[in-house]
Amino acid sequence: MLCDRQKNTNVRLSLPAVCIVWQTAMIILFGVFIRYNEESDAHWIEHRKAKNISSDIENDFYFRYPSFQDVHVMIFVGFGFLMTFLKRYSFGAVGFNFLIAAFGLQWALLMQGWFHSLDYTDGKIKIGIENLINADFCVAGCLIAYGAVLGKVSPVQLLVLTLFGITLFAVEEYIILNLIHARDAGGSMVIHTFGGYYGLAISWMLYRPNLDQSSRLQGSVYHSDVFAMIGTLFLWMFWPSFNSAITDHGDGQHRAAINTYLALASTVLTTMAVSSLFQKHGKLDMVHIQNSTLAGGVAVGTAAEFMLMPYGSLIVGFCCGIVSTLGYIYLTPFMEKHLKIQDTCGIHNLHAMPGVIGGIVGAITAAAATESVYGPEGLINTFDFVGDFKDMVPTQQGGHQAAGICVAICFGVGGGIIVGCILRLPIWGDPADDNCFDDEPYWELPDDEESIPPVLQYNNHMRNKDV
Amino acid sequence: MLCDRQKNTNVRLSLPAVCIVWQTAMIILFGVFIRYNEESDAHWIEHRKAKNISSDIENDFYFRYPSFQDVHVMIFVGFGFLMTFLKRYSFGAVGFNFLIAAFGLQWALLMQGWFHSLDYTDGKIKIGIENLINADFCVAGCLIAYGAVLGKVSPVQLLVLTLFGITLFAVEEYIILNLIHARDAGGSMVIHTFGGYYGLAISWMLYRPNLDQSSRLQGSVYHSDVFAMIGTLFLWMFWPSFNSAITDHGDGQHRAAINTYLALASTVLTTMAVSSLFQKHGKLDMVHIQNSTLAGGVAVGTAAEFMLMPYGSLIVGFCCGIVSTLGYIYLTPFMEKHLKIQDTCGIHNLHAMPGVIGGIVGAITAAAATESVYGPEGLINTFDFVGDFKDMVPTQQGGHQAAGICVAICFGVGGGIIVGCILRLPIWGDPADDNCFDDEPYWELPDDEESIPPVLQYNNHMRNKDV
Amino acid sequence: MLCDRQKNTNVRLSLPAVCIVWQTAMIILFGVFIRYNEESDAHWIEHRKAKNISSDIENDFYFRYPSFQDVHVMIFVGFGFLMTFLKRYSFGAVGFNFLIAAFGLQWALLMQGWFHSLDYTDGKIKIGIENLINADFCVAGCLIAYGAVLGKVSPVQLLVLTLFGITLFAVEEYIILNLIHARDAGGSMVIHTFGGYYGLAISWMLYRPNLDQSSRLQGSVYHSDVFAMIGTLFLWMFWPSFNSAITDHGDGQHRAAINTYLALASTVLTTMAVSSLFQKHGKLDMVHIQNSTLAGGVAVGTAAEFMLMPYGSLIVGFCCGIVSTLGYIYLTPFMEKHLKIQDTCGIHNLHAMPGVIGGIVGAITAAAATESVYGPEGLINTFDFVGDFKDMVPTQQGGHQAAGICVAICFGVGGGIIVGCILRLPIWGDPADDNCFDDEPYWELPDDEESIPPVLQYNNHMRNKDV
Repeated sequence: MLCDRQKNTNVRLSLPAVCIVWQTAMIILFGVFIRYNEESDAHWIEHRKAKNISSDIENDFYFRYPSFQDVHVMIFVGFGFLMTFLKRYSFGAVGFNFLIAAFGLQWALLMQGWFHSLDYTDGKIKIGIENLINADFCVAGCLIAYGAVLGKVSPVQLLVLTLFGITLFAVEEYIILNLIHARDAGGSMVIHTFGGYYGLAISWMLYRPNLDQSSRLQGSVYHSDVFAMIGTLFLWMFWPSFNSAITDHGDGQHRAAINTYLALASTVLTTMAVSSLFQKHGKLDMVHIQNSTLAGGVAVGTAAEFMLMPYGSLIVGFCCGIVSTLGYIYLTPFMEKHLKIQDTCGIHNLHAMPGVIGGIVGAITAAAATESVYGPEGLINTFDFVGDFKDMVPTQQGGHQAAGICVAICFGVGGGIIVGCILRLPIWGDPADDNCFDDEPYWELPDDEESIPPVLQYNNHMRNKDV
Repeated sequence: MLCDRQKNTNVRLSLPAVCIVWQTAMIILFGVFIRYNEESDAHWIEHRKAKNISSDIENDFYFRYPSFQDVHVMIFVGFGFLMTFLKRYSFGAVGFNFLIAAFGLQWALLMQGWFHSLDYTDGKIKIGIENLINADFCVAGCLIAYGAVLGKVSPVQLLVLTLFGITLFAVEEYIILNLIHARDAGGSMVIHTFGGYYGLAISWMLYRPNLDQSSRLQGSVYHSDVFAMIGTLFLWMFWPSFNSAITDHGDGQHRAAINTYLALASTVLTTMAVSSLFQKHGKLDMVHIQNSTLAGGVAVGTAAEFMLMPYGSLIVGFCCGIVSTLGYIYLTPFMEKHLKIQDTCGIHNLHAMPGVIGGIVGAITAAAATESVYGPEGLINTFDFVGDFKDMVPTQQGGHQAAGICVAICFGVGGGIIVGCILRLPIWGDPADDNCFDDEPYWELPDDEESIPPVLQYNNHMRNKDV
Repeated sequence: MLCDRQKNTNVRLSLPAVCIVWQTAMIILFGVFIRYNEESDAHWIEHRKAKNISSDIENDFYFRYPSFQDVHVMIFVGFGFLMTFLKRYSFGAVGFNFLIAAFGLQWALLMQGWFHSLDYTDGKIKIGIENLINADFCVAGCLIAYGAVLGKVSPVQLLVLTLFGITLFAVEEYIILNLIHARDAGGSMVIHTFGGYYGLAISWMLYRPNLDQSSRLQGSVYHSDVFAMIGTLFLWMFWPSFNSAITDHGDGQHRAAINTYLALASTVLTTMAVSSLFQKHGKLDMVHIQNSTLAGGVAVGTAAEFMLMPYGSLIVGFCCGIVSTLGYIYLTPFMEKHLKIQDTCGIHNLHAMPGVIGGIVGAITAAAATESVYGPEGLINTFDFVGDFKDMVPTQQGGHQAAGICVAICFGVGGGIIVGCILRLPIWGDPADDNCFDDEPYWELPDDEESIPPVLQYNNHMRNKDV
């Protein structure tokens, strides 16, 4: 199983060092900067009375906590298990996903906090449930990028990818949401487009020309495909919570959930159709079912809170199921062969393309918004035409949305190239080509022979004696 | 692996055609008919002010969204994984479940919408979170039916089963709930009784006399049984949400959750008891644990919102655990041998029988309701004695409940026979007897040999050389 | 596979008898004692008007139901799947967990009800959603104890363990929370410390000196480790709901969720660090990732509702990841060798130690509380300085918290020794050493040979002929 070209994948010093030092840094930075906000602080009672809030149920916690927990499941079980499809990389898929998400959410609380939740009176970041959701969102961008390099990097590289990814995300998000004033509740642009291109650019920088020689492990087995469906389904089911988690209270959350529910349902049918149509005997391909069925949720991210209309959601899902599945069939092999981009999970088809589509759908929907559809107050609330932006009109908003897509792509590609350069340094303990897609370099693996039924073990025993 | 009697299972034209055409039809119908309701529309703010609603938290979204997500998990992970127990049909179990649920919920929104949510002022169906829950419920009826024919039908047949199933469901539900004015919050009658008999009648029409000859694949392996427990547990845990999802705000939802929680707990103990008692060495049978533990949730569906009392819930669960497990031991083999009903998942024991029991429990509990137990307002609210039904009394309600059971059974059996006839047409690409319970006809399967530990592979290699 | 020293593991009489008799007793006791409380009773409408509650959304159901469902998932999927790591004990792990939790929650409703929810006007226990959560909590203590004896006891022994465990828990909890007036929202003391030492003491009483001879099955296989990660992740993700489920409405729940979220994130990094650092080649050990990553949630249980501060939570998580992982590396082998405590799942590292740490953190945080940090009303609310305890000050509270830890340890160790004595009686059908960690004695197992790829089966066939 070993080969001469094996690299040193021993991370015994680097991994613990990075974990301990960075976690210590988090503690110090949290100590200096992070405090509870007025809804999670023990002074809430006094605050409530001062603001004449009639009941504890008006605390933002009750508006958002159920969605938060759903998003949390998507991040850890959804992304983690979606990547377990490889036959011998399930530990790495779910374990490293766990590691980088746990680190990333802390760093995201700080980075996003400085941009969005800084209380200038005392220089502290004040956090509540919405910050936790946003931190999970921010982490999602990096987990998407992990999908492109799955099986080809060390955990230390992943932590570096996450550190820079979160940082870039927070800046990009601030530019898109605050400076450009684009709306992006479900993150088609800020999460999926950015995360997709970030991962693809890194994968391009880390291109392994001889990888297909060792592709023995780059496939699934029956049970690993079933494990991956756990990830798929939890992502699919909870996507309405993802897209509605930070939208406006009331109709905003309500509408975002409905639109996402419908878009995803539509995607399933067209994914199955295309998957069957393009195989020789009409058989379905698990790769498509595991991934393309989710494209509708990505593509409806930006517009979910708008008056997209139920049929509009279905149309978006319809198109994305087709585009995404065709991407797996034609585009991924093309990109690997001609563009030198090895995209293990096909994030281009699941996140990058649908993300861009979502951005475009958002721009069109915003530009087409009218007062008769939204109501005068509804229009202002939905697009947040207040403060500096109180004179904006929907057509302008459409333009701003389009600008947001460009920023997300630029940050993704540019950031990915820079971070890819850093990750090419020969100090991170990444695996040799022969060790890719294998848990062996980074995990203590159980001896699986015992699990074979007795009769086979006996045969082996006999056989070995003969030999 | 092939045999002469193999049928043509190539669905390369029929499956994509059905998916694309039906999804397109959905888009058109949604475009014509479906709009947001006043709680999910951007005009909500104005509506809120007009109705003097003090806070966004009063939006129905916050009363029902957590339950909705739990129900959603039951539909996709619960039903999907419960059926993964077969050794080589996990892709079909979880994948086709996914497909038909995604189609069914769209069609259900339309069918149920026309009956229940049509706004006569503009001829549009107005949807909100409650419609999504009801669509999931409607889908559940068809997924139950899928359990009876699991492994013996093509995906195209399943889509046809779903199209007619949803249609029948919506009519049956309208008759039971609106015309007869029965109450059935958790759907013992409208979902489980109907779905159960619908599936059994179809399975009877599709009887395969020579099936047991090929039953090599009609069993589980160790890991497939563990996968199935994921389905069982998510159904079991979230059943309180299922039964309380559309009950009255306040005490109605609260009480339904408590009753269901208790009934299910009680069922687990009696299921284990009977499973052990009827095996030669007292060993537990996974089939019972995976299925019969859920019967209490089914049987408490109708009465969950009534004042069933905690001990009443325990009694219902107690009986159903026994009845359902005995059903698996005696009734399923009997039905296969003498009634020509091949019921792969034993839905008669898990849904049909407990559903009827649930209907009866509901009728008795309703007939026995008194003003002293419910309070004058509580009685009116719980049984909805308003409008045309404001002069009804509990004993009458009991009679109406009983009538509901009969309607559900008639629709299930009658509809199933008709749909079964349609499904016998030789155009649907269903598998030959030898291909039943096998993912091979409809799925690209991974080559599993690689997953075998190296020492075994080596042995095979040697062995093959010898041969 | 059999051996001479095999004990009689036939539970065909004892298991059904215990299940049926105890479940019948539950029905009778529930009939005598348990009723709906005013928020789940049909009189709620009248109650609401009398108390001038403006909306149904103020029903406690809406404050706590989402957390309840998360806790429910932790109990059944979390604990159940966490224990599936053994190669041939997945049925027992998830199945017996299911059985004892379903019994335990009923008994817990009664035991805790007598202490906390007895309505003295009519002698009835009035239950609502908070009672269901507390029942699940109570069950958690027994499931922790199950972890120590996993694979070494019969289901009847587990039911006995649960009966006494719940009883002891309810008494201990009453002493700690009501008599001593300690606060323990997330149960570091009452659940984890008690449950941990209860299980360890039982395991000590049931010591099997010759067990390591049969340890062939005491390990994992690749897929069983992935199954266990399902348990780990659902525990990890929903722990914020666990610690916030019964805290005060408003800021209490909000803060508890934030603190737990942060502590758990921090734990993941230090667990990975220590796991890698202490293995020869820096490889990660799945046992640590599956278990120690959860220690931060345990340790922040008591203080989660206090003003622990975000950085405080990170520090607690940081330390517990290290302590718990070192426990797995050094303490578990030491305890097995020198203290005769065989702790299958390492509950000492995951629950007992972190629980004690959590109690200490709670005592310190309480003692250090000041009015400036909490606000005058916040201090009273958070520590419940009302009624008999209205003159208490934070430093006193710190002392009471510390007393709580001692009570929990004493009940755990003392109760465990007594119950261990009972479980040593030779009437419970426990397995012989050679049958430990094997599902075979208590479960009908599927014949797994069919799942082997055809080429292997052919080889076996040939081989067997030769022999």
